[in-house]
Amino acid sequence: MNILVLNSGSSSLKFLLVRYPSSEERADEGQSGVERGIPLVRGTIERIGGPATLAMVADGIHKPVGQREVLDHRSAVEWIVESLGSPLVEAVGHRVVHGGAWFRDTVVIDQTVLEKIALVTDLAPLHNRACLATIEAARTVVGAQIPMVAVFDTAFHRTIPDHAATYAIPEEWSMKYGVRRYGFHGIAHASSAAAYAGTLGRSLKGTRLITVHLGSGCSATAIRDGCSIDTSMGFTPMEGLVMGTRAGDCDTGLVGYLARHAELTVEQIDRLLNERSGLLGLSGRWSDMREIVRAREQGDQRAELAIAVFCYRVRKYLGAYLAVLGGADAVLFSGGIGERSPLIRARICEGMDWCGLRLDEQKNSAAVTLPAGSAVCISPNDTTVPAYVTAVDEETWIAREVLRCLQRKEREAQ
Amino acid sequence: MNILVLNSGSSSLKFLLVRYPSSEERADEGQSGVERGIPLVRGTIERIGGPATLAMVADGIHKPVGQREVLDHRSAVEWIVESLGSPLVEAVGHRVVHGGAWFRDTVVIDQTVLEKIALVTDLAPLHNRACLATIEAARTVVGAQIPMVAVFDTAFHRTIPDHAATYAIPEEWSMKYGVRRYGFHGIAHASSAAAYAGTLGRSLKGTRLITVHLGSGCSATAIRDGCSIDTSMGFTPMEGLVMGTRAGDCDTGLVGYLARHAELTVEQIDRLLNERSGLLGLSGRWSDMREIVRAREQGDQRAELAIAVFCYRVRKYLGAYLAVLGGADAVLFSGGIGERSPLIRARICEGMDWCGLRLDEQKNSAAVTLPAGSAVCISPNDTTVPAYVTAVDEETWIAREVLRCLQRKEREAQ
Repeated sequence: MNILVLNSGSSSLKFLLVRYPSSEERADEGQSGVERGIPLVRGTIERIGGPATLAMVADGIHKPVGQREVLDHRSAVEWIVESLGSPLVEAVGHRVVHGGAWFRDTVVIDQTVLEKIALVTDLAPLHNRACLATIEAARTVVGAQIPMVAVFDTAFHRTIPDHAATYAIPEEWSMKYGVRRYGFHGIAHASSAAAYAGTLGRSLKGTRLITVHLGSGCSATAIRDGCSIDTSMGFTPMEGLVMGTRAGDCDTGLVGYLARHAELTVEQIDRLLNERSGLLGLSGRWSDMREIVRAREQGDQRAELAIAVFCYRVRKYLGAYLAVLGGADAVLFSGGIGERSPLIRARICEGMDWCGLRLDEQKNSAAVTLPAGSAVCISPNDTTVPAYVTAVDEETWIAREVLRCLQRKEREAQ
Repeated sequence: MNILVLNSGSSSLKFLLVRYPSSEERADEGQSGVERGIPLVRGTIERIGGPATLAMVADGIHKPVGQREVLDHRSAVEWIVESLGSPLVEAVGHRVVHGGAWFRDTVVIDQTVLEKIALVTDLAPLHNRACLATIEAARTVVGAQIPMVAVFDTAFHRTIPDHAATYAIPEEWSMKYGVRRYGFHGIAHASSAAAYAGTLGRSLKGTRLITVHLGSGCSATAIRDGCSIDTSMGFTPMEGLVMGTRAGDCDTGLVGYLARHAELTVEQIDRLLNERSGLLGLSGRWSDMREIVRAREQGDQRAELAIAVFCYRVRKYLGAYLAVLGGADAVLFSGGIGERSPLIRARICEGMDWCGLRLDEQKNSAAVTLPAGSAVCISPNDTTVPAYVTAVDEETWIAREVLRCLQRKEREAQ
């Protein structure tokens, strides 16, 4: 079965075309058990909404396809299908950021599912909107008869127990508005843990992991036996670590104070906390960690403070999740910053010897571009809580979920 | 010098009359060095605003003075001075919850100081208002010529470094509105650490402590070398641990969401998060931990959840502050719940063996009513991170601060 995975960001679209051999083919090749897909092509369109770029990798060879005006996610999907040479697609998988309280597992998309995704758009406006546009586009471009499957970032966190997911707020809010910790980046955290387990040939059963996913959005997750038991993002993707433009943890009392004193509406405060805070607010100029690191090297004091706050807040979550898990077997870094910034990883782990977490300077410096789905240790061999860099492969994880969902549906139909 | 300490809560008023021998008297008795006060009387008025009670302890003997209609803090101060038999008072010390960015140390109260305290009332409305009323009353009742000194709960946290005190928000908010982590309960945390150091005859220099103050307000502090380096309450006393009626840590995105969907104003949301959340919101009925523990014993599921959330959140802070301090030499419990609930202490420390924190069941059960200013270990002797119960003595700590402030002023005048 050929599965096309579409992973839409607010202004980007990643894709993967993967072939899963049928059970007959697999029998011919002497395979059994776990489904192993063969990635045919993967790629990314960046800067949707203007002059965008498309880059692809097929058979391990990078092919920058070029530039084109791409106004919306629909044009992006069209470009992808065209570049793939109108391939045989038998199912499409979509990453959906927020599934609200409805979706605790991967589902086949129908009208009801679409409506429910639209209903929770308010909780993750940038992300769910792009995703809905992509689903709509895929339906037209790939064809309405092809099954489409939604894989939710929130679903991985369905295992968070009540004592970690419940806010200490009036019960009415929890009951009527479904207010609880949903958590996000689930596909990334799951795929980071899978990369670790796959590389070490180790089962996640009996393993305690802290996954730290640092990109333009950032979150940390405590994983026991392969299941999320706590995560730093909450009801919305605003809570937790400092991010590119999002504040992360903040005194809730601040919103009321600003509404009274700064003559700002709640909407304005909310937007400023989402779009003008985080690294951008701290540094005053940059939301991109690479630029902040450069500015710091040139002696910029606010850039230094931004890095200090960013790393300090991750370190606090490492401690909190050590307490939640009762110690950890490994700390996994992923995401643009997590995978490519030895400096930030080193700053985060500073002074963590007390719990057995140390980095090996050389290994840490060397770990900057890993093949998707792999993991590499950046700690000395005798470290009790070793750190790893993992290159998450969300698309492959989504493809596997699509296959699992369709096979389950087939079994149920029999 | 006789110092009267007035420690005002929103509906209560604690007091202490303490005599500090003059340097001549101390020389006569062969004392030198640290000032040791002689507590003459201490007591509490509860339920100001209605039929209030006054209880006193003098020379170690409890004296319930009785009941009386006490409408406001002024009547409360009058009752205290009357009950003390109009004693010679040479200075009055007041606990002030929020000093904003102005007060980094104890100060003599004058008109400017009063105005500044009034200005930050919005950040700690219940507390600062009661305190201003008490200062006003003391001025009238004790006499305007007697020096009055303000001891700030926020002052102990002035040593929190920028990377821990700075929120990742637009810089304008930090600059224009002084938004940063102030922290509260400083007198309690300082006094808890002092009780530990005093009891063990140990210097705070070189010591890493996590103080957990659990009353109707709750907070945790990381203390290194006797200085606060991080604390759970922030810009307002709303942030951090779950409290009697306050939510503590919460997704800031929730406020915007509720404003859009629940037809509530920011003021209403703020009030609900302050007054109808925390243990009250979780249990649906009780803000008092004693009642929740009783309800849980009778099988109340929501009471069990409230306890589970409360303890889990403290445990996460223990982990975070272990990471901040690079391990800890002791964990200190204080406050109404911290001093008197072996169950809650045990639930908090569950599963913390990984870092060397364990409780001794018998010692823990036995530690329920300690003399003010003392500390007792509740861990087995071989524990690497032992836990203690400390009976904080805020009033004595305030009195010492008053004396230190007046002596400094005298030296400066010479």
